Amino acid sequence: MSPWSAAALGDPIANIETPALLLDLDAFERNLQRMVEALQGSSMRLRAHAKSHKCPEIALRQVAMGAVGICCQKVSEAAVFVDAGIQDVLVTNQIASLAKARRLANLARKARIGVLVDDTQQVVWLHQAATDAGVSLDVYVEIDVGSGRCGVAPGEQAVALALAVDRSSSLRFSGLQCYQGAAQHMRQPAQRQAAIAQATEWARITRDAIVAKGVACDRITGAGTGTFWHERDSGVFNEIQAGSYIFMDRDYRDNQAGPEDWAFEHALFVQTTVMSQTQLGKAIVDAGLKASSVDSGMPAVWERSDLNFVKASDEHGVLELTPQSQLALGDVLWLVPGHCDPTVNLYDELIGVRHGRVESIWPISARGALL
Amino acid sequence: MSPWSAAALGDPIANIETPALLLDLDAFERNLQRMVEALQGSSMRLRAHAKSHKCPEIALRQVAMGAVGICCQKVSEAAVFVDAGIQDVLVTNQIASLAKARRLANLARKARIGVLVDDTQQVVWLHQAATDAGVSLDVYVEIDVGSGRCGVAPGEQAVALALAVDRSSSLRFSGLQCYQGAAQHMRQPAQRQAAIAQATEWARITRDAIVAKGVACDRITGAGTGTFWHERDSGVFNEIQAGSYIFMDRDYRDNQAGPEDWAFEHALFVQTTVMSQTQLGKAIVDAGLKASSVDSGMPAVWERSDLNFVKASDEHGVLELTPQSQLALGDVLWLVPGHCDPTVNLYDELIGVRHGRVESIWPISARGALL
Repeated sequence: MSPWSAAALGDPIANIETPALLLDLDAFERNLQRMVEALQGSSMRLRAHAKSHKCPEIALRQVAMGAVGICCQKVSEAAVFVDAGIQDVLVTNQIASLAKARRLANLARKARIGVLVDDTQQVVWLHQAATDAGVSLDVYVEIDVGSGRCGVAPGEQAVALALAVDRSSSLRFSGLQCYQGAAQHMRQPAQRQAAIAQATEWARITRDAIVAKGVACDRITGAGTGTFWHERDSGVFNEIQAGSYIFMDRDYRDNQAGPEDWAFEHALFVQTTVMSQTQLGKAIVDAGLKASSVDSGMPAVWERSDLNFVKASDEHGVLELTPQSQLALGDVLWLVPGHCDPTVNLYDELIGVRHGRVESIWPISARGALL
Repeated sequence: MSPWSAAALGDPIANIETPALLLDLDAFERNLQRMVEALQGSSMRLRAHAKSHKCPEIALRQVAMGAVGICCQKVSEAAVFVDAGIQDVLVTNQIASLAKARRLANLARKARIGVLVDDTQQVVWLHQAATDAGVSLDVYVEIDVGSGRCGVAPGEQAVALALAVDRSSSLRFSGLQCYQGAAQHMRQPAQRQAAIAQATEWARITRDAIVAKGVACDRITGAGTGTFWHERDSGVFNEIQAGSYIFMDRDYRDNQAGPEDWAFEHALFVQTTVMSQTQLGKAIVDAGLKASSVDSGMPAVWERSDLNFVKASDEHGVLELTPQSQLALGDVLWLVPGHCDPTVNLYDELIGVRHGRVESIWPISARGALL
């Protein structure tokens, strides 16, 4: 990591060294509040996805505002959040070795810990690890509700797996993971709505089939920032796993908004500096693909529709200018990352800004927690 | 970062927790030796590009085998390597603020430090910072030899800038940066050769024009793993900045090899585990885009031509299998990253393996050094 920080508390924003990852605290807090309002009056609870922020300071705020806990993707991420005091953590992923199952089981000594399965071998590993550690684990069966990634088929296969979990004395069958990841970035509102309607139907059928076997299936969890109000209103889901709503990224902005869409704001920015400008109509900034992940496309330049970020190499970003663009060497710009999650994962610190100054510097403690 | 390491010294490779970044030490050492051989008998010296590895243990080995020093892209990277004992560091980038120029100048108290310019404003900042710190900085004028990124046009503009540097008492005009980045991944050998022939011509013209003004222009530096033997044989370049040759990635492998190409080997791998396999013809591994950067395309699966890595999300990789593929939950695979530099930047440790065991664990100390 850098031997020094990009900023100190109280610094004017213009003095922050670049590239740096900034959080607009006002926008962030409005986003937190909007999610609370979106779920008010519904039976839905929020399990905030911490893979987006990897930052205990944020997780603690989400829990303080009503989230039941967090979910994350990796056991080592879970360990960071448990260590920070989060009491309920769901690893929304499969575990594929006994050694890793043992890591997970150890966390259950300090917090409520859940995990997904889509194969009986995983159940065997988890059962052995939990038994040896003397703990219980919450286990959710993941069903494939249209993403085509992990998860068993809805119906029979899921029932068989739920029964296998239910028979394991150290595991608590806790419900179904029904995340429709592919739906989150479908551009048209009608596409997203249709995808979640289908996912809901598969979740309902599977839940009812499990209950028909005499096994409780209380929790139907899933959803993301792009679709969560459909799951909220589904009558089947009762927990959502939204993560990106606190930050919003360019890829989510590119979704065409439907009439019911919740207007979360961009709160996460990469501050960058123009470091070279030798050609007409072009400028080079000091934020490349090690500063803003390009897996979901290039970042947008905030409040500068005349500037088009067209290309990233390791540590360079190429902007195209219009003939009217005013831009000079040393100018500071804000970028809206194409994809917030992997961008946050590039930084050690999240610099909170408000009223023109640095108000907070939060460690991104689970950055790089891949295991 | 993860609260625990993926491996311990002496572990069998199969026990390394995944995803993890592995260095095949035999292949790595052969790559180091091949570069020594490639430059033997030429007037070319190696300034190894450390942005690829961000790892002092590797930089020290490169210097021990004859490299004059390293180059890197960021001042904070340079600080990490100076702190580790590297005595000659060139930041192959522009600096766009007086504050950052001061950071750079401070490093010159402990090592020989160079940097690029393509604007007189940068010269002003560097001169002031160096003067105030009581140091001298090596300054190279970058010319655009075909990449269309940073750099002034060859010829007149470069001459004017070189003279401005030469007039600055705290700066040493040291030569020309002539990196043809766009040429490195041109797929056809003839394209790469032609691009470097053009770059060489621009470098020669500019050098001669500067010398004609009575200013020495001793160092012509540039080149990368994809083209360096053309620069070596150019009669104009006398320093190369190759970085990826120690690792090789899928993107470099996709270059069609010419008759003179140096056969560097893949030495960098992401070890991953099959964590879900619920559909025929498909498997999900635990390495996604936070484990292997996809900016230059998907990773390849090492020694498994029957497995095609087709898609990455944050922490999932999707493999397509052939009907003949044998693969089971828990199986361990090696991936060849699409692009080594940003992939290394995702990890805190590089795990060296040889004869089936973990022989070394090196910190990637400049990981995340973006400033």
